[in-house]
Formats: sequence, C-alpha cells, structure tokens
Amino acid sequence: MALIVQKYGGTSVGNADRIRNVAQRIKAHRDRGDQIVVVVSARSGVTNELIDRAKSLNPFPDEREMDALLAVGEQETIALTAIALHAIGIPAVSRTGAQAGIITDDAHTRARILDVTGGDIKAQLDDGKVVIVAGFQGLSTDHEVTTLGRGGSDLSAIAMAWALKADLCQIYTDVDGVYTADPRIVPDARKIDVLSYDEMLELASSGSKVMQARSVEFAQKYDVVFEVRSSFNDKPGTIVKAEAPNMEQILVRGVAVDKNQVKFTLNDVPDRPGVAATLFQALGAGGVVVDMIIQNIGRGGLANLSFTVSKEDVPRADKVMVEVIKTLGGGNLQPKADIAKVSAVGIGMRTHSGVAAKFFGALAKAGVNILMITTSEIKISVAIDPAEADRAAQAVHAAFDLGKS
Amino acid sequence: MALIVQKYGGTSVGNADRIRNVAQRIKAHRDRGDQIVVVVSARSGVTNELIDRAKSLNPFPDEREMDALLAVGEQETIALTAIALHAIGIPAVSRTGAQAGIITDDAHTRARILDVTGGDIKAQLDDGKVVIVAGFQGLSTDHEVTTLGRGGSDLSAIAMAWALKADLCQIYTDVDGVYTADPRIVPDARKIDVLSYDEMLELASSGSKVMQARSVEFAQKYDVVFEVRSSFNDKPGTIVKAEAPNMEQILVRGVAVDKNQVKFTLNDVPDRPGVAATLFQALGAGGVVVDMIIQNIGRGGLANLSFTVSKEDVPRADKVMVEVIKTLGGGNLQPKADIAKVSAVGIGMRTHSGVAAKFFGALAKAGVNILMITTSEIKISVAIDPAEADRAAQAVHAAFDLGKS
Repeated sequence: MALIVQKYGGTSVGNADRIRNVAQRIKAHRDRGDQIVVVVSARSGVTNELIDRAKSLNPFPDEREMDALLAVGEQETIALTAIALHAIGIPAVSRTGAQAGIITDDAHTRARILDVTGGDIKAQLDDGKVVIVAGFQGLSTDHEVTTLGRGGSDLSAIAMAWALKADLCQIYTDVDGVYTADPRIVPDARKIDVLSYDEMLELASSGSKVMQARSVEFAQKYDVVFEVRSSFNDKPGTIVKAEAPNMEQILVRGVAVDKNQVKFTLNDVPDRPGVAATLFQALGAGGVVVDMIIQNIGRGGLANLSFTVSKEDVPRADKVMVEVIKTLGGGNLQPKADIAKVSAVGIGMRTHSGVAAKFFGALAKAGVNILMITTSEIKISVAIDPAEADRAAQAVHAAFDLGKS
Repeated sequence: MALIVQKYGGTSVGNADRIRNVAQRIKAHRDRGDQIVVVVSARSGVTNELIDRAKSLNPFPDEREMDALLAVGEQETIALTAIALHAIGIPAVSRTGAQAGIITDDAHTRARILDVTGGDIKAQLDDGKVVIVAGFQGLSTDHEVTTLGRGGSDLSAIAMAWALKADLCQIYTDVDGVYTADPRIVPDARKIDVLSYDEMLELASSGSKVMQARSVEFAQKYDVVFEVRSSFNDKPGTIVKAEAPNMEQILVRGVAVDKNQVKFTLNDVPDRPGVAATLFQALGAGGVVVDMIIQNIGRGGLANLSFTVSKEDVPRADKVMVEVIKTLGGGNLQPKADIAKVSAVGIGMRTHSGVAAKFFGALAKAGVNILMITTSEIKISVAIDPAEADRAAQAVHAAFDLGKS
C-alpha cells in the first residue's frame, strides 16, 4: 500500500465532467489499495474572476482580504470533489489549507510555507478515506488565511507529500509531462522520462511553463520525488528527482524557448566603479527581475550595458531607467527590443566538454544571429531575434539528437 | 456612540455597484460616530448556483461538504465588502462565522446557534474598524463549518446584535419594511412602523416573505430590537420589538396572503380514535409540514379530513398518503386542490371582540367562499380559492381600515 499525493490543477477540475473524471481517476488508484491525498486548485478562471471583482471595487485591495477572498476558489473545489467521490461510493472528506495544517508566514498573497502538520489527515486515511486538500492556501501563525501566490497549489502538494512522507507526489496537468522542447515549436519533441531537480529548475526559469521554480526548489530541498503527468490520459509522465550518476550521460536534456523578454540597452555610460551596481540595485528596488546582462566597453572608454527583463516588468523598468540615467549623470538609452531566449539544459554539461561548441555550431549553421549569451553550470542561453527563435530551437534540438528515434 | 449591527441580504450585495452602495451606507452611519458590525449574505444566486453544481455531481451531497461549499458564498462577500470600504477610506476587516465566534450544533445545513462569542470583534470596533461578518455560517463544537439554513443571515445578525449588546439591529432588504399587506395585491398597503415579535411571527408564518420565523423567535427570546428597512433608500423601516401596552389598540396589524398551499382531502375514513394521530404522525415522519387541518363527520359516521401543505411538500405528502390509506384500511383520497390562505394578524385581537365578525363579514360582502378556517390568539386565517385571494385580501384590508389615510 502506497501513500500518493495527487495534485489536480484548475483545468482538471474546470467543470462537473472534469471533476467526475478526476473522481474516477482517484477511484482507480484507490481500488489498487493506495491511500490517496488529493490537492486541488480553484476551477480555471475563478481566481482571476475574484481578483477582477476585487479590483473593480478597489485598485489596491488589502492583501489580507484578498487572501480571504481567493481562498474561496479552492474551498469550492475541495467540497465538490469530495461530493463527486461520494457519488461513486468512495469515502472522502475535504480539508482547507488551515485544516490540513499548512502553516505559513504572514506575507499575504505570497506566503511562504513554514511547516505542514497534516492535521488529522493520517487518521482520515487510516479510516479509509480519501482526503481532498485545498491547494494554494494556508494559515499564518496569526491564524489568518493566507495564499501562496502563483503556482501555489503545486507547492501545497509537494509540501503535503513531504509532511505525510508520501511514496509519490503526482502533479496532474494538461500536458503529458516535461518535453525536450515545446512540441508546437519542435514537432519531434519527446516527453522526458526522468529529470533532475536542477534541470527542472533551469527549464522552469528558461521559459518552460510546466511548474514554478519554488515548488521544484522545495521538492529538491526536502527530496520529494514528484511526477508531472496528464489528467486527461493514463500515460506515465516525467519523474523529477535527485540527480543520479547515470543521468549525466545525457548532455542536453531539453531546449527551452522564452519569447517573453525585452532587451534594454544603455550606451555611453561613464565607466567608473559602481555603475553596474547602481543600475541593478535600482532595478531590484523597483521590483524588476533582470535575466541576462552584458557589459562591454565602447568608444571613448564609455560602457555599454544591456539586460533583459520579462515583458510584464517593462513599465517598471522604464520608470527606473529614467531615474538611473539622472543618477549616473549620463548614458544614451537605446530603443527597447523584443528578444527571445533559447536555452539548452542538462546536467551532463558539467562533466562533458564540447556542449557549447555543438550549441553555437548548430545556431551558426542555421544562420541565427546571437545578441547575448549567458551560461550556468548546466545551461547555455542565447538572446536572439524572436523571428529566429523557432528555427534556433529546432536546430539545437536536432544537434543534440533529442527527437523521437 | 451607538453600536449598530447591519445585515445586508444577497440582493443588496448582488454586484460591484451594490456593494459600493452598501459601503457608502456603512460610511454614512460611521461618520455619525457609530460603531458598525455588518453581516452579509452571499451575492444573490450564488448559493443556488453552488447547490446546483453539487447536485449535478451527486443528487444527495454529503451535508458536511455542502456546508464547506456553501460557506464560500458569504466568504466572498465579506472580503469584497471590506475591500470596497477600504476604497472609500473606511478601515474594515472581514470575519468568517467561525472567526466571529458563531458556535452551532453539528446539524449540518440547518445548524442551530448555541452561542456567539464575537471573537475579537469588540477589540476591532474599539480599534476604529468596521467589522464585516459572514452571515449564514458558523462553527460546530467539533470545529466544522456549518450553515444555518434558510434565512440564516438574518439569524446571524440578530444573534450578533445580542452577543455584542448592540443598540440596534438593522435588517436591510429590498423592501421598505413590513407592510399591512403585499402592495402588489393591495395597492394602498402602508408600511407598518412598529410590530410586536408575535405579530411578526404570525405574519411570517402566514406568507409574508420578509423574514424567517426562527430569526424572529431568537430576537423575541433574547429581546433583540430589530428594524427591517430598505438598502435602496433612506426611509425608516419597521421596528420589531417586545409588545407594549399601546400596541394593542390596533386590532389588525396586517393582512397576509399565502398562495403556495395545496389542500388534501381524505373522505370516508373509519372514525375511530387515533385516526388523525396516525395520519399526522405519518406526515410528520415523512417530513411534511401541515398547516391547516379540518375534520368533520360525514355520512354513515365516516370522517372527512382535510389539511393543507406548502407546494414543496406535495410529493412527500403524496407518498405518505398512499401508505396511510393502507394503514387506516379505508378512505377515499380526493383530488388535490390549490388553495390560498388569507390571514389577518394583530395582538389587538386578544383584548377586543368583534374582529372575527368583521373579518368574515368583509369576506361575505366580497362574495368569497371559505373552505377552511383556523385561528390563533392573534390571527384568523381562511383557506379560499386562489382566484379569490387578492379580492379577499383587499376586502379585509379595507374593513380594518389599514390603508393609507
């Protein structure tokens, strides 16, 4: 008998038929004799609807009240899922985040999990029940309802799996798993069977939308093995777990494309110590997350600085740049440019040479012009013209032989 | 400085504009220096939507899960109302039924209030905040979320007013108060300024839809003065309070019409002791609430029994009657008939004679045929053909001079 935590996202519980489908899936697992804890999100669209409703009343709603409001979405789905399980004869009971003992700090709308007690979930499981837990929400140490921010339900599931010492945590979603590339861009992309946490993290931060980085970080920190799989079919998904020696044999695990970046360039900046620090501290203080950075020295010993930010951060970055130029006493801000980031990720890079050569060779052969380069121990990324992004991804994918055999 | 509990129903918080309107109304009271506790219902339609969603998954949803589900409706409105108050500069904080210390028994979906602690509401008020409390919901002694059943938010407000020793409890609704008759039936009906609890109870049970009887009973038991008034204008409403001597000077306070009744007639029942008991015990056990009852002896010493039930109870009553006829070993069930009940209510009846004579005289003059009669100390009701109900109500209303002067 295994203890399995299953997480179903908003699409998987989006309407009555889908909730029934989830109930059948839970039943199938339970019929095999497993104990099941289910973490569910709000129906897709509900959280945004609630946010819109609040913002129509107040553009800057109080965060404590927003959490009280948003917690409603998951509370609806836990009750409906329990009710659907009862309809097919499965004993089940719902638990809010508070009841499930998901204890957080008091950073409303983006709370961090401090502990998970599990409440009475073990007793309910031993009593033969399936327990349905509200994802995305917790209770602060001040006994206030909190929410965990984007991707919070995945985090709830992984934290619950850790707390209950579950044998497996299954993240059900609308894709079959993590792919070697986005199949809409690279038609022969394959589902990856096994990934290390580090690779999953690099893929997440490189534009693969499957999971938020912090859920993966939590899993890595507490060594929670999880599987990303589809709630619409029965195919095995992608297992994400700690690195094993044989996983390094593959040089590149996947190729990610992020078309959501904008490049800022500030030319002719007086090149004195602390210029970069001034710029990036100001951006950080302004709430802008900077991704790629390049600095070089141009004519007359003046520095040219380029960096990329995600599109959502552009208005904030614009505001910061105006101030920064005043502070620096110089610099010509160039027109912004949309860029795409194409990355190759794989822990094999750490121990094998030649990966960069093959990567840049593939791009050169495909005639892709590289604007910026960044690397980490297990990733190479280039910023390129968005019009060339798909071609670049296809070329890299083929060069590393990632396609279907 | 007065402490006022205000209750706003689902229509009053039905959309963003109406929530803004409620916020302005609260602000106006607070600007006068009063402390305000607000009890809100779910947006109109939300509770029924949630019930439909549950029943589409399971025709007999678990009551514990139903309560977890339904509590969501009010949780949404408390947060939105607090957010709307913040937008106009009023400090406010929301409290669920559990947080407000509304302690109930564990009869899910129809819980009874055992106690109201108020939680930290007094401290929040003293801190200058408006406190928004979720109506309709509480927490059982087993720490489960419960709901109070139909009309539960009124009950929450009255219980909260009692617990906080409020100076006044205002029940805001979509009518201006309690009327001498339904103005759609009797065009010159007047709003009643003051009513006794007993009169309000008899009007509630006679078809006036303003409030559920149990909220009034709670108010009477704990002597909570409340006012029924409109959330769409600023007119004073109807004050409901303990009887005062001068209130008896008015013979009839109001006329109620209930067109939602069906008459069952069982003729030729063997007339032996216990026949009526068998019938009405079976109906009670079958969950049927019987209103009016008549028994008389017909030809051959056989008894004829008639009783009325509300339309919702007809399928249950049909089922019971089939069994009862078997048990009684006789009786001819007549075709059911829709009937209307017209009632005159007033505590003045207790001390003044001639009320019945005037009531029946008015009906006779209007040519209304009476099918059944029941009376209480402060009420006379007749069952009549629904087609004659409006005419009957108008005649009685005029006979007791209840119209606008």
